[in-house]
Amino acid sequence: MDDVLAALDEHSDLDDLIAWCRIPSVSSDPSRATDVVHSAEHLASELRRHAPHRVEIWPTGGHPAVFAEWKGPVGSPTLLIYGHHDVQPEHPVAEWISPPFEPTVRNGRLYARGAVDDKGQVHLHVRAIAAFVRSRGSLPLHVKLLVEGEEEVGSKHLTELLASKQSELQADLVCVSDTSMFGPGVPSICVGLRGVFYAELHVEGPSTDLHSGSFGGALANPAHALAQMIASLHDDEGHVLVPGFYDDVRAPTPKEREEIAALPFNEAAWLRSTGASSAFGEVGYSTLERLWTRPTLDVCGLYGGHMGAGAKTILPSRVSAKISGRLVADQDPTVILRRLRAHLLAVAPAGVRTRVVDLHGGKPYLAPTGHPAYEAAKRALSKAFGAPAVFVREGASIPFVRTIADALGKPCLLLGFGQPDSNAHAPNEWLDVDSYHRGAKAAALFYNEVACQAAAIFQHAFER
Amino acid sequence: MDDVLAALDEHSDLDDLIAWCRIPSVSSDPSRATDVVHSAEHLASELRRHAPHRVEIWPTGGHPAVFAEWKGPVGSPTLLIYGHHDVQPEHPVAEWISPPFEPTVRNGRLYARGAVDDKGQVHLHVRAIAAFVRSRGSLPLHVKLLVEGEEEVGSKHLTELLASKQSELQADLVCVSDTSMFGPGVPSICVGLRGVFYAELHVEGPSTDLHSGSFGGALANPAHALAQMIASLHDDEGHVLVPGFYDDVRAPTPKEREEIAALPFNEAAWLRSTGASSAFGEVGYSTLERLWTRPTLDVCGLYGGHMGAGAKTILPSRVSAKISGRLVADQDPTVILRRLRAHLLAVAPAGVRTRVVDLHGGKPYLAPTGHPAYEAAKRALSKAFGAPAVFVREGASIPFVRTIADALGKPCLLLGFGQPDSNAHAPNEWLDVDSYHRGAKAAALFYNEVACQAAAIFQHAFER
Repeated sequence: MDDVLAALDEHSDLDDLIAWCRIPSVSSDPSRATDVVHSAEHLASELRRHAPHRVEIWPTGGHPAVFAEWKGPVGSPTLLIYGHHDVQPEHPVAEWISPPFEPTVRNGRLYARGAVDDKGQVHLHVRAIAAFVRSRGSLPLHVKLLVEGEEEVGSKHLTELLASKQSELQADLVCVSDTSMFGPGVPSICVGLRGVFYAELHVEGPSTDLHSGSFGGALANPAHALAQMIASLHDDEGHVLVPGFYDDVRAPTPKEREEIAALPFNEAAWLRSTGASSAFGEVGYSTLERLWTRPTLDVCGLYGGHMGAGAKTILPSRVSAKISGRLVADQDPTVILRRLRAHLLAVAPAGVRTRVVDLHGGKPYLAPTGHPAYEAAKRALSKAFGAPAVFVREGASIPFVRTIADALGKPCLLLGFGQPDSNAHAPNEWLDVDSYHRGAKAAALFYNEVACQAAAIFQHAFER
Repeated sequence: MDDVLAALDEHSDLDDLIAWCRIPSVSSDPSRATDVVHSAEHLASELRRHAPHRVEIWPTGGHPAVFAEWKGPVGSPTLLIYGHHDVQPEHPVAEWISPPFEPTVRNGRLYARGAVDDKGQVHLHVRAIAAFVRSRGSLPLHVKLLVEGEEEVGSKHLTELLASKQSELQADLVCVSDTSMFGPGVPSICVGLRGVFYAELHVEGPSTDLHSGSFGGALANPAHALAQMIASLHDDEGHVLVPGFYDDVRAPTPKEREEIAALPFNEAAWLRSTGASSAFGEVGYSTLERLWTRPTLDVCGLYGGHMGAGAKTILPSRVSAKISGRLVADQDPTVILRRLRAHLLAVAPAGVRTRVVDLHGGKPYLAPTGHPAYEAAKRALSKAFGAPAVFVREGASIPFVRTIADALGKPCLLLGFGQPDSNAHAPNEWLDVDSYHRGAKAAALFYNEVACQAAAIFQHAFER
């Protein structure tokens, strides 16, 4: 692979990325729709310079996606690389040190909206592909690239696109670079994402707010009932008490727990960043285990009765809570919501009416790390960064990963090259330029590893 | 007393009340300050027609009060009658069937702002005084009348006035007509008012709202902590669990409980009026006992975290509850707040910061029903209404009663002639015209009873 890595050293391609980042492809802003189109065209035009088999702009009901394909040797596996070319809004602009759409390199960082999320991380794959083409004239495997334009608005048309382009998108593996490394210098493969569910609990008593002097003490207070119901959700050790809540949880293996324990996690710095006085969670689990491997139930908001300044002596007619949970494999948001509702109705005291409204849900994702591509990725990342690559997880949800994995029925490798403090959705978004270069090498090495592991990959698919 | 009662039958005086109710003496509206002055002058001018010893308008830092005095026989007791001539705002005007300041009699009711609260109830005393003057030329006891202009804005200058006019206001008894009868045809003396305290509980965790995916499960959630703390305030049987909460509660006597049980209370109609599905309160007490004789703790409002529409997946930084309680004799709001704060801090879980802020408080009032004036009042009311008078209590607080009782150190008799649904602070306020006439007779009979009981009243004061 020395020839390919040398080609990467020779061509930094940073100017192409900078040119792309100048385009304000903010998908949530209707007045920037043409910028999103422009961004797609810009990418397509760059890709055409690197000898693709085909490059197409795919229209959707919203913003367009870019699709490109490079053919590898007959019988080689197919890798689908997913990314997105739309970006978050830049507000508040005043907080940016250099303007969001005037990319600027300072102290080894490229500052621009989209630098890390996700143009920079798409671009390092473009560079890896270009390096093969430049040094060898072709790629060692089939590569497909799908770069959508609606990720920041919930990938509204992705499911539709995956269905309508099923044959074009067929692949043996999917690779996504849209996440972060565990920390500087720690190459990381994200193998788990939590799912989510979101519900609203309404507790109603009297038909209007009543005078607390004239009625207090003789009617059930919905706020007391709500508090009792919320208090019934957890025990003192942080465990969720909803019957059946943990039934479908796939526990991490002892090896996975060891790997998590071995990560260079600075708990004190983490706690400082939150402003909380101490960590708290399920007894028997570390902070990272709580965030990555355990489901949660959290009240996100409370409202009802008198919420203004000062005193108003009422017995509230109605109070509500927003209740959300993070789920892990193999929990299903629909099942969990059903169990939560049953529990809340069972513990609701007499004298109030209780309703639980479903707001939304998303399934968790747990990577099939036994697949040979995972060890291949570890080798590629370790070599490119000169440090052992690690498996990490993410407490939050990335809905499109599960969408893609389910639609294609193939593993989805999350090779992320951002940093946890890269300001992905905030002012002063940045990409570490060294990670950008090492990331491109890691991608090239990964393609090569996958090509070399073709037999094992086909065998793995056959056995399943 | 036939002469006095005949004089009342002869002179309805309703036109004088109607003229007074035309004056929009809304004390909370600065643009109506001259109307409040006009109202005071109107009353003073009417009083001057009834041979008073003196009539004065007393300025205060806010709206003026009216004071008048009639001398009785040497050695007779002194009765101070308190009332107010300011009224609530009339909004929403569109909901009034006849305009608020154009008094109208329909179906035996006088509709007007101030009809029952409190001009009509002051006026029936004016009529009782006038009837004595008309029939006998003088009163059988010393009568003082204090009609303030700031009751609807919290009697801001009453304490000051009571202090500065201490000798003018000296009395053996106080009588206030500003409450309601238990129901139509049930003459009532209110012998208990609950006190109140009001606090705000703030529970704080992380320094800002955090992403519930990235942090959920590893930090204490202030909303869970708040719920636990609120849930700890009551047991399943409605008893308050704050240590020491009931220590100073003076239990009603078996006779008082019997009297309450004997009242014609329609629980089903009461429940229907609230819209709640069932009554709920401390096990072991009836609804009226819960409202009148037991202290309460009620959450009046909850707020914090995501309170808007839809889903926002956050771990809230801070949530708050408004907590208020109704107190009975001999509880003290300051002591109760101290006990509540100690309890909340004791049960607050680790990982959050808890603050309890005092908003306001007022002491409960329990009348000294052993004083001979109470049986005197019962006899007077029973005779005027042709039905046995009852002792009732009020779940709400009337702060000025305690202010006057404490300042003068004398019993404060609450002889109310409104109805529970008189719309005192709402559109279509009304006064039952028959109760207005019977109330004037009751007042006259009461003055006579007090005059006849002079020895017992002086003896009672001496023994204490």
